[in-house]
Amino acid sequence: MQTIEFWFDFGSNYSYLSMMRIQRLAQEAGLRVELKPFMLGPIFKTLGWESSPFVLQTMKGNYVWRDMQRQCAKYALRWQRPSVFPRNALLAARVALQGEGAPWLAGFCERVMLANFADDREIGDEALIAGILDGLGAGSAAIIAAAKTDACKAALRARSAEAQARGIFGAPMFFIGDEMFWGNDRLEDAIAYATTTTGDKAGSVTS
Amino acid sequence: MQTIEFWFDFGSNYSYLSMMRIQRLAQEAGLRVELKPFMLGPIFKTLGWESSPFVLQTMKGNYVWRDMQRQCAKYALRWQRPSVFPRNALLAARVALQGEGAPWLAGFCERVMLANFADDREIGDEALIAGILDGLGAGSAAIIAAAKTDACKAALRARSAEAQARGIFGAPMFFIGDEMFWGNDRLEDAIAYATTTTGDKAGSVTS
Repeated sequence: MQTIEFWFDFGSNYSYLSMMRIQRLAQEAGLRVELKPFMLGPIFKTLGWESSPFVLQTMKGNYVWRDMQRQCAKYALRWQRPSVFPRNALLAARVALQGEGAPWLAGFCERVMLANFADDREIGDEALIAGILDGLGAGSAAIIAAAKTDACKAALRARSAEAQARGIFGAPMFFIGDEMFWGNDRLEDAIAYATTTTGDKAGSVTS
Repeated sequence: MQTIEFWFDFGSNYSYLSMMRIQRLAQEAGLRVELKPFMLGPIFKTLGWESSPFVLQTMKGNYVWRDMQRQCAKYALRWQRPSVFPRNALLAARVALQGEGAPWLAGFCERVMLANFADDREIGDEALIAGILDGLGAGSAAIIAAAKTDACKAALRARSAEAQARGIFGAPMFFIGDEMFWGNDRLEDAIAYATTTTGDKAGSVTS
């Protein structure tokens, strides 16, 4: 079974669109989804940006909120412009990293995204994250304790460094093997690429 | 008949994709295309950029050329990565401004884009521009002379200032009335918006 890697930041609004669409699209195409939470902030910093370009560039920022409204209508997704943007996704990302391979991971990621972009909730709030985990029957106490360990913090730093090493400069980013697709607008293209490419080819470097 | 405004820069690679697709899509949807050449450079300068972000951000730049290759394959368009990027589009934009309402305008715009992005030709070269005009039976001498007048230079500066005043921060940009759509990826959305909106509504401010 072919894999689509989905690299995302819980603070990224266009990652929200992909998070809510990818499981169904991948299932229809017979692909396995690998969820890859990472932190976009350190990458923006290496580009010389202290925040999201949607904050730093006013005109683009204004456009993006209107675009999100239209895109959510198109995809029949709920939408509420976050009153804080971008929200601190550190705890959510560490928790998601703890969930690799766990049955609750996909549901957790979707609910955190909905909290941020549909319900305007503070996803940096530990009680909110715990409530989502418990709602999924995942037992929040042990997971959040593990998420706060130095090992988990180091793992998230390593994940973000891996993102940079693979050439990731924004989110969402999809990989089929080494083939990289940027943005929710390329999700369908990435899936089409995977389903028209043999497993061997998708794993090799293309240029 | 509803109108879709298509704001573009001849040096913009994603504008190339839209230029080669918009006439057919608009015709099928019963829309009139208004071609709006402008200069993206002055807008980038106000954002503090001395060149295209695809040049200034290496990782994004590398991605963009691979993306263009895939997008052109998807749309069955010819593609050759320009050996100079972004090319100086000043003369071509001035000529296009002279062509407003002329029967040769759409063909001229497509051929300049093909020269830049399919044949790797220097679109700042007056002989190339003249050849395209003459090939369309447009009589290059008078048009190029008009394009070099102070009046035409001022008109292009005014056009680019209008772009900025309307909130344009990149290209291609589409308008249905005041509703703005950014990027070739939104061309279909813009057309759908026009065809599901009454003429009155499209002309009013939406937010």
